[in-house]
Amino acid sequence: MTRAPEEEHPVSAFGWAARDSSGHLSPFNFSRRATGDEDVRFKVLYCGICHSDLHCIKNDWGFTFYPLVPGHEIVGQVTEVGSKVKNVKMGDKVGVGCMVGACHSCESCHNDLENYCPGLIYTYCSTYHDGTRTYGGYSDTMVANERYIVQFPDNMPLDAGAPLLCAGITVYSPLKYFGLGEPGKHVGVVGLGGLGHVAVKFAKALGAKVTVISTSPNKKSEALDSLGADSFLVSQDHDQMQAAIGTLDGIIDTVSAVHSMLPLFGLLKSHGKLIMVGAPDKPLELPIFPLIMGRKTVVGSGIGGMKETQEMIDFAAKHNITADIEVVPMDYVNTAMERLKNNDVRYRFVIDIGNTIAATKP
Amino acid sequence: MTRAPEEEHPVSAFGWAARDSSGHLSPFNFSRRATGDEDVRFKVLYCGICHSDLHCIKNDWGFTFYPLVPGHEIVGQVTEVGSKVKNVKMGDKVGVGCMVGACHSCESCHNDLENYCPGLIYTYCSTYHDGTRTYGGYSDTMVANERYIVQFPDNMPLDAGAPLLCAGITVYSPLKYFGLGEPGKHVGVVGLGGLGHVAVKFAKALGAKVTVISTSPNKKSEALDSLGADSFLVSQDHDQMQAAIGTLDGIIDTVSAVHSMLPLFGLLKSHGKLIMVGAPDKPLELPIFPLIMGRKTVVGSGIGGMKETQEMIDFAAKHNITADIEVVPMDYVNTAMERLKNNDVRYRFVIDIGNTIAATKP
Repeated sequence: MTRAPEEEHPVSAFGWAARDSSGHLSPFNFSRRATGDEDVRFKVLYCGICHSDLHCIKNDWGFTFYPLVPGHEIVGQVTEVGSKVKNVKMGDKVGVGCMVGACHSCESCHNDLENYCPGLIYTYCSTYHDGTRTYGGYSDTMVANERYIVQFPDNMPLDAGAPLLCAGITVYSPLKYFGLGEPGKHVGVVGLGGLGHVAVKFAKALGAKVTVISTSPNKKSEALDSLGADSFLVSQDHDQMQAAIGTLDGIIDTVSAVHSMLPLFGLLKSHGKLIMVGAPDKPLELPIFPLIMGRKTVVGSGIGGMKETQEMIDFAAKHNITADIEVVPMDYVNTAMERLKNNDVRYRFVIDIGNTIAATKP
Repeated sequence: MTRAPEEEHPVSAFGWAARDSSGHLSPFNFSRRATGDEDVRFKVLYCGICHSDLHCIKNDWGFTFYPLVPGHEIVGQVTEVGSKVKNVKMGDKVGVGCMVGACHSCESCHNDLENYCPGLIYTYCSTYHDGTRTYGGYSDTMVANERYIVQFPDNMPLDAGAPLLCAGITVYSPLKYFGLGEPGKHVGVVGLGGLGHVAVKFAKALGAKVTVISTSPNKKSEALDSLGADSFLVSQDHDQMQAAIGTLDGIIDTVSAVHSMLPLFGLLKSHGKLIMVGAPDKPLELPIFPLIMGRKTVVGSGIGGMKETQEMIDFAAKHNITADIEVVPMDYVNTAMERLKNNDVRYRFVIDIGNTIAATKP
């Protein structure tokens, strides 16, 4: 017999949930588990709105179950720690990103790549070890195993740092793994949204030369002046694209709409890598010849392991990297989703959960 | 003013050429350059028929110019060497594969990867340094710069060794480069044709475990008994494919027809690589999610550099690897092309140029 969400666990929780594929979010009472020996509980202060949240509330990818509390860029302050917790203490500023569990026995887990574990448990819309559903960070309280807790350095702001837990690690991990974040390397970033704008910041801080490739000519000054990119290509401008043929060691492609990969292959040097971190819901057209002619690669990359996520946050704090955000109150979330759908945000909405969620309780 | 093919150069040559996109081949008089200081001339004895030849004579890829003499799996015996030739002497058994020139000044060339040089000159259907067109091995005589000459070890048969110059290096190079040809690795080979059957032989000789994936259940015994593969999957058999989920470190995909990549991604472990060596003339559908979920790669690989091609032939000679061939006379070539189109060959046609071309002179 399945219990109601508010009776499953001993700790009351309140959040905002989608109930069906309209994606409309509304107040929702549920519950969280008691703080286990290895668990950390925290009061949620901010939660970023990721493009994935938008896909999930509308069931665009086909695996949503409702009610769904989204949110996987969650930060807050620790209120309780289990008896076996080693590195987190009361009052710490912490975050939880896209995952809250994995098998911890496979090769990926042993290599600190929980993100590629076949038993990965997502922060929301997954089934936890105890058989109950996971609920995300559009909520007043959060609990997670210490392994999935990211420590926020003192100088990292909680609001503008929150999006790094998903957007940041998603771009940092491939820059490091594929050797692109190095002096002497020339990296392309396709799409200047939530992921793309932090990709530019990380790639620059890691020492690479950065070219932004966008469909919007009007993003040029932001890319060059605000974000510090070295150059800017309008993807529809044939002459510009032609002049840049064979110049890039790798490309971080953040676009989650269906788009053409062929011009991007042209920009790559031989042995160059096109790294897909956006997730279009339909297949893209892959021409094989351009791959063969230059031993070029298309590869996917999904977030990063917990060890690397902590490394990313520490690196970001050291280099003063944060997301460019617009902070909004909890009851603005449906409007924010609508604006996100229309790309009307620069570059990430962050919900001020701590100050605004209580007032939305019915 | 363009000279006629038989008057361009001082050395008379005779071959078979396609004249238009019907692809029909017929006798053709042309000429080859005099033996330059760094050149090696040889009497052609055998030439393999590659699937690319079939595509090119019909202009399937859109860059053919006619008349076209195909053939890039060319072997024979040296009849003349230039004054600066260092390692080749009269009477040597040698071969020429897919290329006869490159820029020799780019990064790829410096790394012995002439095959990825932007200035790569193909054995046929390219323009040579002197501005004349290149003609392939369906001809009685061949000349090439020493850098593009492969020495055939004594125990390597010329007829069954010829296809290794294209099919062999095409599969050997990625097995080595991507670290798949190693004990402990499990490699899939998709398609059991000219490329696939030598892929199985090389992967086994290199120490890997090999699974053949084919649409034809009737190729099972050949794969396992004749070629020595460890297992066989019928790609349409859902249960078989399901049972093999996540078992392969890499896949060599030799299929040049449009086909689905999704089931192949399923067979790969996390971080596994799908290596495309066949060249479908239309784009394939690339679903992005399965790539992201396991940091999986699709990568193209095209033949190999000259140094690696020599290494491949030496390795093949040491391990008694040759292609399985059907030797045919020159005037059978149009029939052979028709049969190749229908996959009616196991696994490679080789034209007995040395013994049969003279009789076809008009």
